[in-house]
Amino acid sequence: MEGSVRATYVVETALPLERAAEVLAGEQSTGTFVRVARETDDLRARFAAQVESVAELPPGGAAALPGTVGDGPMRRARLTLRFPLDNFGPSLPNLLAAVAGNLFELKEFAALKLVDLDLPAPFGSRYGGPRFGVAGTRALMGRPEGAMIGTIVKPSIGLSPPDLASLVTELAEAGVDFIKDDELQGNGPSAPLAERVRAVMPVLERHADRTGVKPMYAFNITDDIDRLEANHDLVVAAGGTCVMVVIPNVGLAGLEYLSRRTQVPIHGHRAGFGAISRSAQVGIGFRAWQQLARLAGADHLHTNGISNKFYESDAEVLDSIAAVRAPLLDLVPTVPVLSSGQWAGLAHATYASVGTADLLVLAGGGIHGHPDGSAAGVASMRAAWDSALRGETVTDALSASPDFRRAVERFGPPR
Amino acid sequence: MEGSVRATYVVETALPLERAAEVLAGEQSTGTFVRVARETDDLRARFAAQVESVAELPPGGAAALPGTVGDGPMRRARLTLRFPLDNFGPSLPNLLAAVAGNLFELKEFAALKLVDLDLPAPFGSRYGGPRFGVAGTRALMGRPEGAMIGTIVKPSIGLSPPDLASLVTELAEAGVDFIKDDELQGNGPSAPLAERVRAVMPVLERHADRTGVKPMYAFNITDDIDRLEANHDLVVAAGGTCVMVVIPNVGLAGLEYLSRRTQVPIHGHRAGFGAISRSAQVGIGFRAWQQLARLAGADHLHTNGISNKFYESDAEVLDSIAAVRAPLLDLVPTVPVLSSGQWAGLAHATYASVGTADLLVLAGGGIHGHPDGSAAGVASMRAAWDSALRGETVTDALSASPDFRRAVERFGPPR
Repeated sequence: MEGSVRATYVVETALPLERAAEVLAGEQSTGTFVRVARETDDLRARFAAQVESVAELPPGGAAALPGTVGDGPMRRARLTLRFPLDNFGPSLPNLLAAVAGNLFELKEFAALKLVDLDLPAPFGSRYGGPRFGVAGTRALMGRPEGAMIGTIVKPSIGLSPPDLASLVTELAEAGVDFIKDDELQGNGPSAPLAERVRAVMPVLERHADRTGVKPMYAFNITDDIDRLEANHDLVVAAGGTCVMVVIPNVGLAGLEYLSRRTQVPIHGHRAGFGAISRSAQVGIGFRAWQQLARLAGADHLHTNGISNKFYESDAEVLDSIAAVRAPLLDLVPTVPVLSSGQWAGLAHATYASVGTADLLVLAGGGIHGHPDGSAAGVASMRAAWDSALRGETVTDALSASPDFRRAVERFGPPR
Repeated sequence: MEGSVRATYVVETALPLERAAEVLAGEQSTGTFVRVARETDDLRARFAAQVESVAELPPGGAAALPGTVGDGPMRRARLTLRFPLDNFGPSLPNLLAAVAGNLFELKEFAALKLVDLDLPAPFGSRYGGPRFGVAGTRALMGRPEGAMIGTIVKPSIGLSPPDLASLVTELAEAGVDFIKDDELQGNGPSAPLAERVRAVMPVLERHADRTGVKPMYAFNITDDIDRLEANHDLVVAAGGTCVMVVIPNVGLAGLEYLSRRTQVPIHGHRAGFGAISRSAQVGIGFRAWQQLARLAGADHLHTNGISNKFYESDAEVLDSIAAVRAPLLDLVPTVPVLSSGQWAGLAHATYASVGTADLLVLAGGGIHGHPDGSAAGVASMRAAWDSALRGETVTDALSASPDFRRAVERFGPPR
């Protein structure tokens, strides 16, 4: 099969950099630096990974990963390896064994993080990617343009079905485009998915009958693989228009399994991704990982938003949003999901950096915590985003929207 | 549903430790420290995670994770939270959202690693764990007692079917109990699983006809979820007695899906686990993760061996082996798989620490690289392990076994 995969890493090592790159390429392809029987020149020529580039970087300053060997100063580099596609074919699980497998445990590396991937066309042919993406999501939620404004059920867990129904009634009336379960709300005995669907969907159907618009509700259907399809069917049978999975917890392979069966957009949550992403020294960066999640079918993908409560800087968040929006093979575009600490006052700054409203902006406190209630919270966000889209300044938006002005009283100055 | 899950973390933070523990418990259960509408006292009492213990540890000395906030010195602690089982039920994917979800991204933590879990009985009822385990594996490979000695196909990738058949012939005649595909050998166009099965199984069947014993071959069937069952069936239809998956790449959920269908033991490879385990500051430690892998059905689970080429110290490896051998709910025992740098000279030291031969010991160089060939390599390992099991010293074993003495000439002094 023609083609190759490029994988880019940031590494630190006491080895000479070219030598470290060769160790990595060898370990992850023909498998050993000691030539064994039957390892012919022809075999190496066909299957060995090649070092494509090595660019030294300034020292990172962090302590070496546990177990690192080597004397002398550590050097840091960005290096790109090229793997023959023939080694694994366009299979995401088998790709990972090569580009993100045993290498993280190699003691020659004081740091080793997979930061980017460049995948050839056969991956796009084998994996369909998102079935709905931006356009499909907009059509289902009745929001043809402007930012898609959403919120999260709070408290995260423990609401009784009547309380959940009453909260959803309030949010639908407030005019949100989108509501989601918290990722902590799975399918436990205290609030089974079936009960939540029975509580929520009649509210949304009645709202749709009245207004012509059915807000999209992302039911968290995360569960064992054998339950995903039944969970999905339960949502769809009740008129639901979105299902959510926590991608690390069903696995990229579980997401892909669901995407081959889904009749509605898949909201891809990333809870747990921090386990592989937060360390600067080891794991997989978002630019690499988001490609896998999109190929595996995420219609919506969490990126965080600026000024969020998690560890990422605004620059990292904006890079994540840009990554999700960058074309990938021939896939339809995935919707970046901005969440955590979002409110009306971030709209202009976000739009100035991102340049699109093809975003799902989720606000918890920014909606529920508005001084005049959640309807005013939604109105403030809508006003701010629409203003930003018209090319106005924040000052223009504040002059025009009393709801935005009241939001500022509570949440402080806009960005 | 009665019961609770205990999750133990090692954390670093600039917050007062009790306060940090409360932040973690709140974030991962009722979801926010700002009380929201409908968050009643009763709801909190039923669903909030509780801080069970906080034990301060000496400082770790590593730099804080990126994005950490807080002034003042960082303090380090081992803390245990207790989560009501009602929050998620006995569902591995939904458990993970609580114990290993967004928490890794919290900027209040300079380090946060999940190091242990204590799961209640309903997890054992819902998940069957290994279908074969130690006893089933021994029965299938015809090795009722003593260490199970195995090896790995090398070169990892690129062998033609005739070359693979010839290598397997040599290894079977050498007397190995077990042979496995490399994790890099998936189902790519250059060596499709079906071709490997066609090359390998006739050799093993003929060997079994002659000797009465069929060495176990772990075919790597890692692939998309929808292909796992067909891949498995292909192996079993040809008389194969083991399938291998790279657990991180099919996901714990994918492993569980396979375990409900498998007719042969599942060899659980851990390539890629380093992405979540190698950092001391973030991720999931082996003691916690191996419980999930066993529940999800791993009959064999890689632990590394002592004196290995990866980053883990002998103490860490021995702790991993002990963890896999510790009873877990009512599951049948999983076989620890010792690999990387293994040879005859490690048998006595390993047995002295581990106290069992219910192990699968994989040697590449330690078998293929023996000066008198792979049959002598296998004989040296068998002699050393049998000697250790009889309570003899290394010196006794060397006196009795010329193959072991020859191995020492090549690999240096035994441990």
